[in-house]
Amino acid sequence: LSYKFGSLSHVDGAVRDQAIAHNIECIEIGRKLGSKALTVWIADGSNFAGQSNLTHALDRYIAAMREVYAALPADWRVFLEHKLYEPAFYSTVISDWGSNFAAAQELGPKALCLVDLGHHAPSVNIEQIVARLIRFKKLAGFHFNDSKYGDDDLDSGSVEPFRLFLVFNELIDAVRRKAEGFSPAYMIDQSHNVTDPIESLMQSAIELQRAYAQASIVDRAALEAAQDANDALGGHLELKRAFTTDVSPLLAVARLRAGGAIAPIEAYRASGYRARKTAERPAVGGSSAGIV
Amino acid sequence: LSYKFGSLSHVDGAVRDQAIAHNIECIEIGRKLGSKALTVWIADGSNFAGQSNLTHALDRYIAAMREVYAALPADWRVFLEHKLYEPAFYSTVISDWGSNFAAAQELGPKALCLVDLGHHAPSVNIEQIVARLIRFKKLAGFHFNDSKYGDDDLDSGSVEPFRLFLVFNELIDAVRRKAEGFSPAYMIDQSHNVTDPIESLMQSAIELQRAYAQASIVDRAALEAAQDANDALGGHLELKRAFTTDVSPLLAVARLRAGGAIAPIEAYRASGYRARKTAERPAVGGSSAGIV
Amino acid sequence: LSYKFGSLSHVDGAVRDQAIAHNIECIEIGRKLGSKALTVWIADGSNFAGQSNLTHALDRYIAAMREVYAALPADWRVFLEHKLYEPAFYSTVISDWGSNFAAAQELGPKALCLVDLGHHAPSVNIEQIVARLIRFKKLAGFHFNDSKYGDDDLDSGSVEPFRLFLVFNELIDAVRRKAEGFSPAYMIDQSHNVTDPIESLMQSAIELQRAYAQASIVDRAALEAAQDANDALGGHLELKRAFTTDVSPLLAVARLRAGGAIAPIEAYRASGYRARKTAERPAVGGSSAGIV
Amino acid sequence: LSYKFGSLSHVDGAVRDQAIAHNIECIEIGRKLGSKALTVWIADGSNFAGQSNLTHALDRYIAAMREVYAALPADWRVFLEHKLYEPAFYSTVISDWGSNFAAAQELGPKALCLVDLGHHAPSVNIEQIVARLIRFKKLAGFHFNDSKYGDDDLDSGSVEPFRLFLVFNELIDAVRRKAEGFSPAYMIDQSHNVTDPIESLMQSAIELQRAYAQASIVDRAALEAAQDANDALGGHLELKRAFTTDVSPLLAVARLRAGGAIAPIEAYRASGYRARKTAERPAVGGSSAGIV
Repeated sequence: LSYKFGSLSHVDGAVRDQAIAHNIECIEIGRKLGSKALTVWIADGSNFAGQSNLTHALDRYIAAMREVYAALPADWRVFLEHKLYEPAFYSTVISDWGSNFAAAQELGPKALCLVDLGHHAPSVNIEQIVARLIRFKKLAGFHFNDSKYGDDDLDSGSVEPFRLFLVFNELIDAVRRKAEGFSPAYMIDQSHNVTDPIESLMQSAIELQRAYAQASIVDRAALEAAQDANDALGGHLELKRAFTTDVSPLLAVARLRAGGAIAPIEAYRASGYRARKTAERPAVGGSSAGIV
Repeated sequence: LSYKFGSLSHVDGAVRDQAIAHNIECIEIGRKLGSKALTVWIADGSNFAGQSNLTHALDRYIAAMREVYAALPADWRVFLEHKLYEPAFYSTVISDWGSNFAAAQELGPKALCLVDLGHHAPSVNIEQIVARLIRFKKLAGFHFNDSKYGDDDLDSGSVEPFRLFLVFNELIDAVRRKAEGFSPAYMIDQSHNVTDPIESLMQSAIELQRAYAQASIVDRAALEAAQDANDALGGHLELKRAFTTDVSPLLAVARLRAGGAIAPIEAYRASGYRARKTAERPAVGGSSAGIV
Repeated sequence: LSYKFGSLSHVDGAVRDQAIAHNIECIEIGRKLGSKALTVWIADGSNFAGQSNLTHALDRYIAAMREVYAALPADWRVFLEHKLYEPAFYSTVISDWGSNFAAAQELGPKALCLVDLGHHAPSVNIEQIVARLIRFKKLAGFHFNDSKYGDDDLDSGSVEPFRLFLVFNELIDAVRRKAEGFSPAYMIDQSHNVTDPIESLMQSAIELQRAYAQASIVDRAALEAAQDANDALGGHLELKRAFTTDVSPLLAVARLRAGGAIAPIEAYRASGYRARKTAERPAVGGSSAGIV
Repeated sequence: LSYKFGSLSHVDGAVRDQAIAHNIECIEIGRKLGSKALTVWIADGSNFAGQSNLTHALDRYIAAMREVYAALPADWRVFLEHKLYEPAFYSTVISDWGSNFAAAQELGPKALCLVDLGHHAPSVNIEQIVARLIRFKKLAGFHFNDSKYGDDDLDSGSVEPFRLFLVFNELIDAVRRKAEGFSPAYMIDQSHNVTDPIESLMQSAIELQRAYAQASIVDRAALEAAQDANDALGGHLELKRAFTTDVSPLLAVARLRAGGAIAPIEAYRASGYRARKTAERPAVGGSSAGIV
């Protein structure tokens, strides 16, 4: 049965059952692998006003997800992922964090909302969405990447590094407040079309560590004092002070102590690993050839 | 006490108390006027990352709103209004329907979410937000207007008339489904800088009636049949058939039967009302002079 | 030679030469087919700040296009197409109508700018871009489609029919003003994933005709009178009067007189053409199967 | 005569003449003050489709600007400023850099295009617009500020510091290429509602210096080598290396050597200047009181 017109929200119960079974099979596989969470992103939506009943589509999704939810082991959680558009270009069943949150609440405490940094409308304040989900105990975690236009899936921190820092600032704030139920999962979800994926992943990891390190050195007592005094610039400068601090040496030492390279990309390039592996493998057609 | 740094979410409890008292006074006045609802929109937010703790600001807002909520008469509701930005340009406490919905849920069943058509991020599907709020029993109603860029407050139906029709399509669908708790309030919230406000209000009323009439003549049995058959174009054409029907004569007759004018703006212009009133009133300075 | 890192703007002159030769070959083929224009859209751009020198990339594009331009037959034109993003997600060499216009001016009078309705930034006024290109004698024509988010390639008139009408309003205005050099080419550039492409093309043609017919019945003398009197609402109502007129019967009669069907989609469905052709053809794999 | 319906593009020649005379008077005043440039931003546009003829409005603007242009002293330039929207919410006569550039070309070599960082559509690549204007010899300079949503007029570098760096990266690149006619003017155009304007201006100056210093330390030979080798990540890392370098100490020493404070905002706060001036001045009503 085809998912051309939807999966968990399809008008045909047989297609929904197939999608439910597929998710339950994923849980079974995950159980064997030691996983503790299932991520559900559906491409369901419509390209035309009138193609789909917006309310019925959501109802069907929630009803189907209840069955998936019921199949979750006791210590598992399910991560629901929203996305504004694409592949559906008129409406998407779980298009924004509001829909995602409302659905997660209907399902129960094991259902949480996953934040992909490229799945939001233009201009929205993503760090505030993260703060809101933490506040309402529904933050599942992240699909890290960066974007300028849509779901660009660029390398983390490559477009708006200050935004990435501000997301980590919310995470550190949550830890400090001992926010109830705060235990986000961290994933990278990127697409590497013009770089070596291994290099891009190394650089993305460095950028995520940078944002984490910088958010960690914010003087939070000073920040709170400024906020309590309505010293808008003062509060801002506390964040900027951390963000403009060059934590590169610190990150390098941390990598070294963990048995890694001071300069991972340079070390990787010097190693000749890619050239060696390319020589070992037979040439293949298709998109994978583009990576070499 | 100044609201420069916030009202219901202000860091200073004295300012919050003042804002709470102000809202409770509004309820008292409304009670005398026969009102049954209080609308709360706050300008609270921040212009700088770090100016405000995003979570604490929301917590203070919710705590303050609990006191306003507690003062609501038994048969009243409170309408919470969200807005993406302006006057705050970095973060806004109630910036989107997700935050609004989560806050309304915390407060209780009398708290509902008001949709202003110009208060959303670029590109978002507003009719779907309306459908979601209906689905989760939290639609308060509307501040009707139209917008191309931000909170432009232009005349209803002047920018994207098809979008206005699609909003009404959701309302008719909710009526037909007998959606529980569906009882939206309808308001116009516009700013008229280059037109006669009376004319703009007449034209806006006509456009709202047009959208309502067009949404009412959708062949819903055919629409549902197409949706159930995944006939995407077929479903779309049912909506388009209604939207391209010229209901102007029908609206004119309805106005006539209700004791109104067939052509309200033309009748108003012919009446010379504005010129007469302008002559009666002394010239005034300021912005009101611009209207004449 | 691969176009992975660009074509006409590639850093490697050999790749640029290949792309130039490819375009010149297209001209040769077009000449045999009786064409009079070449459309050039390049995917060139970058995914990372620093990947490409923004200025040198444009210089290389213009230099390469000069060679293509030089190969144009005397009575040909070249249509340059801009696009904000995708597949490049940080910068695109010809990203907006400004870049396109500046490049077309460098190349000469045969170079014109093609407008695809889905290739612009959010919120921009597309009908004004059309008006500007006409004013500066550089409008090549259109890739018609509709979009809500990005380059969605949805059916013409399905998302914002009023916008499509306003584009045609500019075209009729240009005809009426006898705008110098005004001779746009009309193309449909859509992607049909959930509809029968033949049906979508029929419906798109109808919507384009509808916009043309509605723009043709605007009372232009009244429109100009309102504009000259700064009667903002009056001018708007002249456009709205035309847009809300149901020209469907007129379009049906025009089709009938031209030997076509009154209701093309219904006639096509009734004909059983698709089912017959599907039966004739062997089953195929891949994306084409999705259409059936 | 009122500018309610436009100034240099007004339908009424008397209003246009008044606006032309006003600009010429500004030139006269500027001449006495030693200025060498006139900046022209017009609020002209429309709120309704049909309110204004988009082409005629531009024609009137260009014709009026020709008269202003003719009044420029020989060694003066005129800076034209574009803005996407506000106060006009449907169309703006000079709405984007494309319109601005085309108008500047019509006027002549003394007409250049001013870039305000908050006057663009969502998502557009502003540093590329800067690069394009330099390439076509039409960059007038900047109104520096920062924005997240619209023309927010926030402090420079407070929202997207990496973007500010990338703008300066283009400026340094232009200097290095000895770009013909490159001589931008630098202005700050911000609105300070929640901060002390003096502090915000100091911080903005620091952020602009930071971006300039960071752009200055890019290893341009390495950058170009990476670009020529299509090493996308390598080129990006050259920029990131500069951007993550903490130039704060360098900026502090530069300030000290120039006779300024190492920590300007702290020094200003410690000086008690604001409190002293506030005490000296009588209390005033209106918006200025909000600053204290």
